[in-house]
Amino acid sequence: MLQIYDKLLELPLFLGIGAADLAEIVSTTKFGFLKLKPKETLVKENDKGGRLYFLMDGKLLVESCADNHSYSIIEEVAAPTAIQPERVFGLVQHYSKTFVAETKCNILYIDKSEVLNLANNYLIFRLNFLNMLSTQAQRCSRLPWQQQPKDIQEKFIHFIRTHCDHPAGKKTIKINMQTLANELHESRLNVSKMLNALNENNTIALMRGEINIPSLEKLR
Amino acid sequence: MLQIYDKLLELPLFLGIGAADLAEIVSTTKFGFLKLKPKETLVKENDKGGRLYFLMDGKLLVESCADNHSYSIIEEVAAPTAIQPERVFGLVQHYSKTFVAETKCNILYIDKSEVLNLANNYLIFRLNFLNMLSTQAQRCSRLPWQQQPKDIQEKFIHFIRTHCDHPAGKKTIKINMQTLANELHESRLNVSKMLNALNENNTIALMRGEINIPSLEKLR
Repeated sequence: MLQIYDKLLELPLFLGIGAADLAEIVSTTKFGFLKLKPKETLVKENDKGGRLYFLMDGKLLVESCADNHSYSIIEEVAAPTAIQPERVFGLVQHYSKTFVAETKCNILYIDKSEVLNLANNYLIFRLNFLNMLSTQAQRCSRLPWQQQPKDIQEKFIHFIRTHCDHPAGKKTIKINMQTLANELHESRLNVSKMLNALNENNTIALMRGEINIPSLEKLR
Repeated sequence: MLQIYDKLLELPLFLGIGAADLAEIVSTTKFGFLKLKPKETLVKENDKGGRLYFLMDGKLLVESCADNHSYSIIEEVAAPTAIQPERVFGLVQHYSKTFVAETKCNILYIDKSEVLNLANNYLIFRLNFLNMLSTQAQRCSRLPWQQQPKDIQEKFIHFIRTHCDHPAGKKTIKINMQTLANELHESRLNVSKMLNALNENNTIALMRGEINIPSLEKLR
Protein backbone atom coordinates (compact mmCIF):
# COMPACT_ATOMS: atom_id res chain seq x y z
CA MET A 1 0.00 0.00 0.00
CA LEU A 2 2.87 2.37 0.76
CA GLN A 3 4.05 1.95 -2.83
CA ILE A 4 0.86 3.56 -4.11
CA TYR A 5 1.41 6.59 -1.88
CA ASP A 6 5.01 6.88 -3.07
CA LYS A 7 3.58 7.17 -6.56
CA LEU A 8 1.67 10.28 -5.46
CA LEU A 9 5.01 12.09 -5.52
CA GLU A 10 5.20 11.51 -9.29
CA LEU A 11 2.02 13.52 -9.79
CA PRO A 12 2.55 17.23 -10.61
CA LEU A 13 0.20 18.13 -7.74
CA PHE A 14 2.40 16.43 -5.13
CA LEU A 15 5.74 17.25 -6.74
CA GLY A 16 8.29 18.39 -4.17
CA ILE A 17 6.31 17.37 -1.09
CA GLY A 18 8.70 16.05 1.57
CA ALA A 19 8.61 12.60 3.15
CA ALA A 20 7.35 13.96 6.50
CA ASP A 21 4.52 15.91 4.85
CA LEU A 22 3.62 12.90 2.71
CA ALA A 23 3.36 10.67 5.79
CA GLU A 24 1.12 13.29 7.42
CA ILE A 25 -1.01 13.65 4.27
CA VAL A 26 -1.45 9.89 4.00
CA SER A 27 -2.50 9.54 7.63
CA THR A 28 -4.88 12.53 7.74
CA THR A 29 -6.44 12.56 4.25
CA LYS A 30 -9.41 10.35 3.40
CA PHE A 31 -8.28 8.51 0.29
CA GLY A 32 -10.68 6.26 -1.59
CA PHE A 33 -9.60 3.31 -3.74
CA LEU A 34 -11.06 1.84 -6.91
CA LYS A 35 -10.02 -1.08 -9.07
CA LEU A 36 -11.25 -1.08 -12.64
CA LYS A 37 -11.37 -3.99 -15.06
CA PRO A 38 -10.75 -3.36 -18.76
CA LYS A 39 -13.74 -1.55 -20.38
CA GLU A 40 -15.13 -0.38 -17.01
CA THR A 41 -16.10 3.30 -16.98
CA LEU A 42 -14.58 5.61 -14.37
CA VAL A 43 -16.35 8.83 -15.30
CA LYS A 44 -18.74 9.88 -18.05
CA GLU A 45 -18.95 13.23 -19.85
CA ASN A 46 -21.26 15.55 -17.85
CA ASP A 47 -20.98 13.43 -14.67
CA LYS A 48 -20.95 15.64 -11.62
CA GLY A 49 -17.44 16.29 -10.33
CA GLY A 50 -16.61 16.97 -6.70
CA ARG A 51 -13.91 14.33 -6.65
CA LEU A 52 -10.30 14.33 -7.74
CA TYR A 53 -9.29 10.95 -9.23
CA PHE A 54 -5.69 9.86 -9.64
CA LEU A 55 -4.81 7.05 -12.03
CA MET A 56 -1.99 5.22 -10.19
CA ASP A 57 -1.59 2.08 -12.34
CA GLY A 58 -2.78 1.07 -15.79
CA LYS A 59 -4.06 2.91 -18.85
CA LEU A 60 -7.26 4.84 -19.45
CA LEU A 61 -8.98 5.72 -22.72
CA VAL A 62 -10.20 9.32 -22.62
CA GLU A 63 -12.93 10.32 -25.07
CA SER A 64 -13.70 13.99 -25.81
CA CYS A 65 -16.73 14.92 -27.92
CA ALA A 66 -17.45 17.95 -30.09
CA ASP A 67 -20.09 20.27 -28.64
CA ASN A 68 -22.59 19.07 -31.26
CA HIS A 69 -21.43 15.43 -30.82
CA SER A 70 -20.62 15.09 -34.51
CA TYR A 71 -17.16 13.63 -33.80
CA SER A 72 -14.95 12.51 -30.93
CA ILE A 73 -11.30 11.86 -30.20
CA ILE A 74 -10.00 9.10 -27.94
CA GLU A 75 -6.61 9.49 -26.27
CA GLU A 76 -4.68 6.91 -24.30
CA VAL A 77 -3.48 8.10 -20.89
CA ALA A 78 -0.94 6.26 -18.72
CA ALA A 79 -0.41 6.35 -14.95
CA PRO A 80 0.31 8.37 -12.92
CA THR A 81 -2.04 11.18 -13.82
CA ALA A 82 -4.82 13.31 -12.31
CA ILE A 83 -8.27 13.27 -13.94
CA GLN A 84 -9.37 16.79 -15.03
CA PRO A 85 -8.16 18.62 -11.89
CA GLU A 86 -9.43 21.88 -13.51
CA ARG A 87 -13.00 20.63 -12.98
CA VAL A 88 -12.82 20.46 -9.15
CA PHE A 89 -13.27 24.25 -8.93
CA GLY A 90 -14.62 26.88 -11.30
CA LEU A 91 -17.76 27.52 -13.27
CA VAL A 92 -18.38 23.96 -14.52
CA GLN A 93 -17.81 21.25 -11.92
CA HIS A 94 -18.76 18.42 -14.26
CA TYR A 95 -16.31 16.29 -16.25
CA SER A 96 -16.08 17.15 -19.95
CA LYS A 97 -14.62 13.80 -21.01
CA THR A 98 -15.39 10.09 -20.62
CA PHE A 99 -12.74 7.89 -18.96
CA VAL A 100 -12.80 4.12 -19.57
CA ALA A 101 -10.24 1.55 -18.38
CA GLU A 102 -8.14 0.09 -21.21
CA THR A 103 -6.17 -2.23 -18.92
CA LYS A 104 -6.64 -3.06 -15.23
CA CYS A 105 -6.50 0.25 -13.39
CA ASN A 106 -5.83 1.31 -9.82
CA ILE A 107 -7.48 4.57 -8.90
CA LEU A 108 -7.00 6.73 -5.82
CA TYR A 109 -9.45 9.54 -5.13
CA ILE A 110 -10.15 12.35 -2.70
CA ASP A 111 -13.27 14.46 -2.28
CA LYS A 112 -13.26 18.18 -3.03
CA SER A 113 -13.27 18.97 0.71
CA GLU A 114 -10.02 17.00 1.06
CA VAL A 115 -8.52 18.80 -1.95
CA LEU A 116 -9.31 22.05 -0.14
CA ASN A 117 -7.77 20.73 3.08
CA LEU A 118 -4.57 19.87 1.22
CA ALA A 119 -4.56 23.31 -0.43
CA ASN A 120 -5.15 24.92 3.00
CA ASN A 121 -2.48 22.98 4.88
CA TYR A 122 0.37 22.43 2.45
CA LEU A 123 2.07 25.35 0.71
CA ILE A 124 3.64 23.11 -1.92
CA PHE A 125 0.32 21.48 -2.84
CA ARG A 126 -1.29 24.94 -3.03
CA LEU A 127 1.53 26.25 -5.24
CA ASN A 128 1.43 23.14 -7.44
CA PHE A 129 -2.33 23.55 -7.93
CA LEU A 130 -2.07 27.29 -8.73
CA ASN A 131 0.85 26.63 -11.12
CA MET A 132 -0.92 23.77 -12.86
CA LEU A 133 -4.18 25.69 -13.41
CA SER A 134 -2.30 28.80 -14.53
CA THR A 135 -0.23 26.82 -17.03
CA GLN A 136 -3.37 25.22 -18.42
CA ALA A 137 -5.11 28.60 -18.79
CA GLN A 138 -1.99 30.11 -20.41
CA ARG A 139 -1.45 27.27 -22.83
CA CYS A 140 -4.94 27.09 -24.24
CA SER A 141 -5.42 30.88 -24.36
CA ARG A 142 -2.57 31.04 -26.91
CA LEU A 143 -4.20 28.48 -29.24
CA PRO A 144 -6.11 31.01 -31.42
CA TRP A 145 -2.91 33.04 -31.91
CA GLN A 146 -0.84 30.22 -33.36
CA GLN A 147 0.23 30.32 -36.98
CA GLN A 148 -2.44 28.87 -39.24
CA PRO A 149 -1.62 25.69 -41.17
CA LYS A 150 -1.04 26.23 -44.87
CA ASP A 151 -1.96 23.06 -46.72
CA ILE A 152 -4.60 20.42 -46.13
CA GLN A 153 -2.28 17.93 -44.39
CA GLU A 154 -1.00 20.65 -42.02
CA LYS A 155 -4.64 21.56 -41.34
CA PHE A 156 -5.46 17.96 -40.43
CA ILE A 157 -2.45 17.69 -38.08
CA HIS A 158 -3.26 21.08 -36.53
CA PHE A 159 -6.86 19.89 -36.00
CA ILE A 160 -5.70 16.78 -34.12
CA ARG A 161 -3.08 18.60 -32.03
CA THR A 162 -5.43 21.38 -30.92
CA HIS A 163 -8.00 18.74 -29.87
CA CYS A 164 -5.60 16.55 -27.86
CA ASP A 165 -4.40 17.08 -24.29
CA HIS A 166 -1.15 15.19 -24.89
CA PRO A 167 0.87 15.91 -28.04
CA ALA A 168 2.07 12.30 -28.33
CA GLY A 169 0.81 8.74 -28.22
CA LYS A 170 -2.08 6.73 -29.66
CA LYS A 171 -5.20 8.60 -30.79
CA THR A 172 -8.46 7.50 -32.41
CA ILE A 173 -10.69 10.00 -34.20
CA LYS A 174 -14.30 8.93 -34.69
CA ILE A 175 -15.42 11.13 -37.55
CA ASN A 176 -16.93 10.74 -40.98
CA MET A 177 -15.25 12.21 -44.03
CA GLN A 178 -17.84 14.96 -44.59
CA THR A 179 -17.65 16.20 -40.97
CA LEU A 180 -13.84 16.28 -41.15
CA ALA A 181 -14.06 18.17 -44.46
CA ASN A 182 -16.35 20.75 -42.81
CA GLU A 183 -14.00 21.12 -39.82
CA LEU A 184 -11.00 21.64 -42.12
CA HIS A 185 -12.94 23.88 -44.52
CA GLU A 186 -11.87 21.67 -47.43
CA SER A 187 -13.72 19.53 -49.96
CA ARG A 188 -14.60 15.93 -49.08
CA LEU A 189 -12.62 14.72 -52.09
CA ASN A 190 -9.41 16.53 -51.08
CA VAL A 191 -9.70 15.28 -47.50
CA SER A 192 -10.18 11.74 -48.77
CA LYS A 193 -7.06 12.00 -51.00
CA MET A 194 -4.95 13.40 -48.15
CA LEU A 195 -6.05 10.68 -45.70
CA ASN A 196 -5.45 7.91 -48.23
CA ALA A 197 -1.93 9.17 -48.84
CA LEU A 198 -1.21 9.13 -45.07
CA ASN A 199 -2.80 5.68 -44.87
CA GLU A 200 -0.49 4.34 -47.58
CA ASN A 201 2.67 5.39 -45.77
CA ASN A 202 1.23 3.97 -42.52
CA THR A 203 1.28 7.14 -40.40
CA ILE A 204 -2.49 6.67 -39.97
CA ALA A 205 -4.80 3.65 -40.30
CA LEU A 206 -7.99 4.58 -42.09
CA MET A 207 -11.17 2.71 -41.21
CA ARG A 208 -14.88 3.28 -41.77
CA GLY A 209 -15.81 6.32 -39.67
CA GLU A 210 -12.55 6.10 -37.76
CA ILE A 211 -8.96 7.26 -38.10
CA ASN A 212 -6.29 5.60 -35.97
CA ILE A 213 -3.01 7.34 -35.25
CA PRO A 214 -0.44 4.99 -33.69
CA SER A 215 1.77 7.84 -32.47
CA LEU A 216 0.82 11.48 -32.90
CA GLU A 217 4.41 12.68 -32.46
CA LYS A 218 5.34 10.90 -35.73
CA LEU A 219 2.60 12.65 -37.71
CA ARG A 220 4.21 15.68 -39.35
CA MET B 1 -8.23 56.22 -0.20
CA LEU B 2 -10.74 53.95 1.51
CA GLN B 3 -12.94 54.20 -1.56
CA ILE B 4 -10.26 52.51 -3.65
CA TYR B 5 -10.10 49.60 -1.21
CA ASP B 6 -13.88 49.29 -1.26
CA LYS B 7 -13.56 48.80 -5.00
CA LEU B 8 -11.39 45.74 -4.37
CA LEU B 9 -14.58 43.97 -3.34
CA GLU B 10 -15.89 44.35 -6.89
CA LEU B 11 -12.98 42.30 -8.25
CA PRO B 12 -13.69 38.56 -8.68
CA LEU B 13 -10.58 37.77 -6.59
CA PHE B 14 -11.92 39.62 -3.52
CA LEU B 15 -15.59 38.74 -4.01
CA GLY B 16 -17.24 37.76 -0.75
CA ILE B 17 -14.45 38.93 1.55
CA GLY B 18 -15.95 40.39 4.74
CA ALA B 19 -15.41 43.93 6.04
CA ALA B 20 -13.19 42.73 8.92
CA ASP B 21 -10.98 40.68 6.59
CA LEU B 22 -10.77 43.56 4.12
CA ALA B 23 -9.62 45.94 6.86
CA GLU B 24 -6.97 43.41 7.89
CA ILE B 25 -5.88 42.86 4.27
CA VAL B 26 -5.58 46.60 3.66
CA SER B 27 -3.49 47.14 6.81
CA THR B 28 -1.16 44.11 6.35
CA THR B 29 -0.72 43.91 2.57
CA LYS B 30 1.85 46.06 0.77
CA PHE B 31 -0.18 47.74 -1.96
CA GLY B 32 1.52 49.87 -4.58
CA PHE B 33 -0.17 52.71 -6.46
CA LEU B 34 0.25 54.02 -9.98
CA LYS B 35 -1.42 56.84 -11.87
CA LEU B 36 -1.30 56.64 -15.65
CA LYS B 37 -1.96 59.44 -18.14
CA PRO B 38 -3.64 58.62 -21.45
CA LYS B 39 -1.24 56.72 -23.80
CA GLU B 40 1.09 55.69 -20.95
CA THR B 41 2.06 52.03 -21.04
CA LEU B 42 1.40 49.85 -17.97
CA VAL B 43 2.85 46.59 -19.23
CA LYS B 44 4.31 45.38 -22.53
CA GLU B 45 4.00 41.96 -24.13
CA ASN B 46 6.83 39.71 -22.80
CA ASP B 47 7.49 41.98 -19.79
CA LYS B 48 8.41 39.91 -16.76
CA GLY B 49 5.44 39.36 -14.45
CA GLY B 50 5.75 38.88 -10.70
CA ARG B 51 3.16 41.54 -9.97
CA LEU B 52 -0.62 41.51 -9.92
CA TYR B 53 -2.04 44.82 -11.20
CA PHE B 54 -5.61 45.89 -10.58
CA LEU B 55 -7.19 48.61 -12.73
CA MET B 56 -9.34 50.54 -10.21
CA ASP B 57 -10.42 53.57 -12.30
CA GLY B 58 -10.31 54.41 -15.99
CA LYS B 59 -9.99 52.43 -19.20
CA LEU B 60 -7.11 50.44 -20.64
CA LEU B 61 -6.44 49.36 -24.23
CA VAL B 62 -5.22 45.76 -24.33
CA GLU B 63 -3.35 44.62 -27.43
CA SER B 64 -2.80 40.92 -28.18
CA CYS B 65 -0.55 39.85 -31.06
CA ALA B 66 -0.49 36.71 -33.18
CA ASP B 67 2.51 34.44 -32.49
CA ASN B 68 4.08 35.50 -35.81
CA HIS B 69 3.06 39.16 -35.20
CA SER B 70 1.17 39.32 -38.51
CA TYR B 71 -1.91 40.85 -36.87
CA SER B 72 -3.15 42.12 -33.52
CA ILE B 73 -6.43 42.84 -31.75
CA ILE B 74 -7.01 45.72 -29.34
CA GLU B 75 -9.74 45.44 -26.71
CA GLU B 76 -11.01 48.14 -24.38
CA VAL B 77 -11.12 47.12 -20.71
CA ALA B 78 -12.89 49.09 -17.99
CA ALA B 79 -12.28 49.18 -14.22
CA PRO B 80 -12.34 47.27 -11.98
CA THR B 81 -10.35 44.40 -13.40
CA ALA B 82 -7.22 42.34 -12.69
CA ILE B 83 -4.40 42.26 -15.29
CA GLN B 84 -3.66 38.70 -16.47
CA PRO B 85 -3.85 37.02 -13.03
CA GLU B 86 -3.13 33.68 -14.78
CA ARG B 87 0.44 34.93 -15.41
CA VAL B 88 1.41 35.28 -11.72
CA PHE B 89 1.93 31.51 -11.46
CA GLY B 90 2.52 28.76 -14.01
CA LEU B 91 4.95 28.00 -16.79
CA VAL B 92 5.13 31.48 -18.33
CA GLN B 93 5.35 34.33 -15.82
CA HIS B 94 5.52 37.05 -18.47
CA TYR B 95 2.58 39.07 -19.74
CA SER B 96 1.26 38.04 -23.15
CA LYS B 97 -0.48 41.34 -23.90
CA THR B 98 0.34 45.06 -23.94
CA PHE B 99 -1.71 47.36 -21.67
CA VAL B 100 -1.86 51.10 -22.46
CA ALA B 101 -3.97 53.74 -20.69
CA GLU B 102 -6.83 55.06 -22.82
CA THR B 103 -8.04 57.53 -20.16
CA LYS B 104 -6.51 58.53 -16.82
CA CYS B 105 -6.04 55.29 -14.88
CA ASN B 106 -5.61 54.43 -11.20
CA ILE B 107 -3.73 51.20 -10.67
CA LEU B 108 -3.25 49.21 -7.48
CA TYR B 109 -0.66 46.42 -7.42
CA ILE B 110 0.75 43.73 -5.16
CA ASP B 111 3.87 41.63 -5.62
CA LYS B 112 3.67 37.87 -6.12
CA SER B 113 4.80 37.26 -2.53
CA GLU B 114 1.79 39.28 -1.32
CA VAL B 115 -0.52 37.33 -3.65
CA LEU B 116 0.80 34.17 -2.01
CA ASN B 117 0.28 35.67 1.47
CA LEU B 118 -3.34 36.46 0.61
CA ALA B 119 -3.81 32.94 -0.79
CA ASN B 120 -2.22 31.50 2.37
CA ASN B 121 -4.21 33.55 4.88
CA TYR B 122 -7.68 34.00 3.40
CA LEU B 123 -9.78 31.00 2.41
CA ILE B 124 -12.08 33.14 0.25
CA PHE B 125 -9.21 34.69 -1.71
CA ARG B 126 -7.71 31.21 -2.19
CA LEU B 127 -11.04 29.81 -3.40
CA ASN B 128 -11.63 32.81 -5.67
CA PHE B 129 -8.20 32.34 -7.25
CA LEU B 130 -8.66 28.58 -7.75
CA ASN B 131 -12.15 29.13 -9.18
CA MET B 132 -11.01 31.89 -11.51
CA LEU B 133 -8.05 29.93 -12.93
CA SER B 134 -10.16 26.77 -13.27
CA THR B 135 -12.91 28.64 -15.12
CA GLN B 136 -10.35 30.16 -17.47
CA ALA B 137 -8.77 26.74 -18.19
CA GLN B 138 -12.22 25.18 -18.71
CA ARG B 139 -13.50 27.90 -20.99
CA CYS B 140 -10.59 27.99 -23.40
CA SER B 141 -10.12 24.20 -23.47
CA ARG B 142 -13.61 23.93 -25.02
CA LEU B 143 -12.79 26.34 -27.87
CA PRO B 144 -11.60 23.70 -30.39
CA TRP B 145 -14.78 21.65 -29.78
CA GLN B 146 -17.22 24.43 -30.69
CA GLN B 147 -19.34 24.17 -33.80
CA GLN B 148 -17.48 25.47 -36.86
CA PRO B 149 -18.88 28.56 -38.58
CA LYS B 150 -20.54 27.84 -41.93
CA ASP B 151 -20.25 30.91 -44.13
CA ILE B 152 -17.56 33.54 -44.48
CA GLN B 153 -19.27 36.14 -42.26
CA GLU B 154 -19.75 33.56 -39.49
CA LYS B 155 -16.06 32.65 -39.88
CA PHE B 156 -15.05 36.29 -39.44
CA ILE B 157 -17.20 36.71 -36.31
CA HIS B 158 -15.92 33.39 -34.90
CA PHE B 159 -12.36 34.57 -35.54
CA ILE B 160 -12.91 37.78 -33.55
CA ARG B 161 -14.78 36.10 -30.69
CA THR B 162 -12.17 33.35 -30.19
CA HIS B 163 -9.44 36.01 -30.10
CA CYS B 164 -11.14 38.33 -27.58
CA ASP B 165 -11.20 37.98 -23.78
CA HIS B 166 -14.48 39.88 -23.46
CA PRO B 167 -17.35 39.01 -25.82
CA ALA B 168 -18.61 42.62 -25.94
CA GLY B 169 -17.41 46.19 -26.38
CA LYS B 170 -15.11 48.08 -28.72
CA LYS B 171 -12.45 46.13 -30.65
CA THR B 172 -9.83 47.12 -33.21
CA ILE B 173 -8.23 44.51 -35.48
CA LYS B 174 -4.94 45.52 -37.08
CA ILE B 175 -4.71 43.17 -40.02
CA ASN B 176 -4.32 43.36 -43.77
CA MET B 177 -6.82 41.74 -46.09
CA GLN B 178 -4.51 38.95 -47.27
CA THR B 179 -3.59 37.90 -43.70
CA LEU B 180 -7.26 37.85 -42.72
CA ALA B 181 -8.04 35.80 -45.86
CA ASN B 182 -5.35 33.27 -44.82
CA GLU B 183 -6.69 33.09 -41.27
CA LEU B 184 -10.23 32.47 -42.53
CA HIS B 185 -9.09 30.09 -45.30
CA GLU B 186 -11.01 32.16 -47.84
CA SER B 187 -10.01 34.17 -50.91
CA ARG B 188 -8.94 37.78 -50.51
CA LEU B 189 -11.74 38.85 -52.85
CA ASN B 190 -14.49 37.13 -50.85
CA VAL B 191 -13.13 38.55 -47.58
CA SER B 192 -13.10 42.03 -49.09
CA LYS B 193 -16.74 41.66 -50.28
CA MET B 194 -17.89 40.45 -46.86
CA LEU B 195 -16.11 43.27 -45.00
CA ASN B 196 -17.46 45.93 -47.37
CA ALA B 197 -21.01 44.66 -46.83
CA LEU B 198 -20.55 44.89 -43.04
CA ASN B 199 -18.98 48.33 -43.48
CA GLU B 200 -22.01 49.56 -45.44
CA ASN B 201 -24.48 48.63 -42.72
CA ASN B 202 -22.15 50.21 -40.11
CA THR B 203 -21.53 47.14 -37.94
CA ILE B 204 -17.82 47.61 -38.67
CA ALA B 205 -15.73 50.58 -39.83
CA LEU B 206 -13.21 49.53 -42.45
CA MET B 207 -9.92 51.43 -42.68
CA ARG B 208 -6.56 50.79 -44.29
CA GLY B 209 -5.01 47.84 -42.41
CA GLU B 210 -7.54 48.20 -39.61
CA ILE B 211 -11.07 47.06 -38.81
CA ASN B 212 -12.98 48.85 -36.06
CA ILE B 213 -15.88 47.17 -34.31
CA PRO B 214 -17.87 49.62 -32.16
CA SER B 215 -19.61 46.86 -30.19
CA LEU B 216 -18.80 43.19 -30.71
CA GLU B 217 -22.10 42.08 -29.16
CA LYS B 218 -23.98 43.68 -32.08
CA LEU B 219 -21.94 41.81 -34.70
CA ARG B 220 -23.97 38.70 -35.63
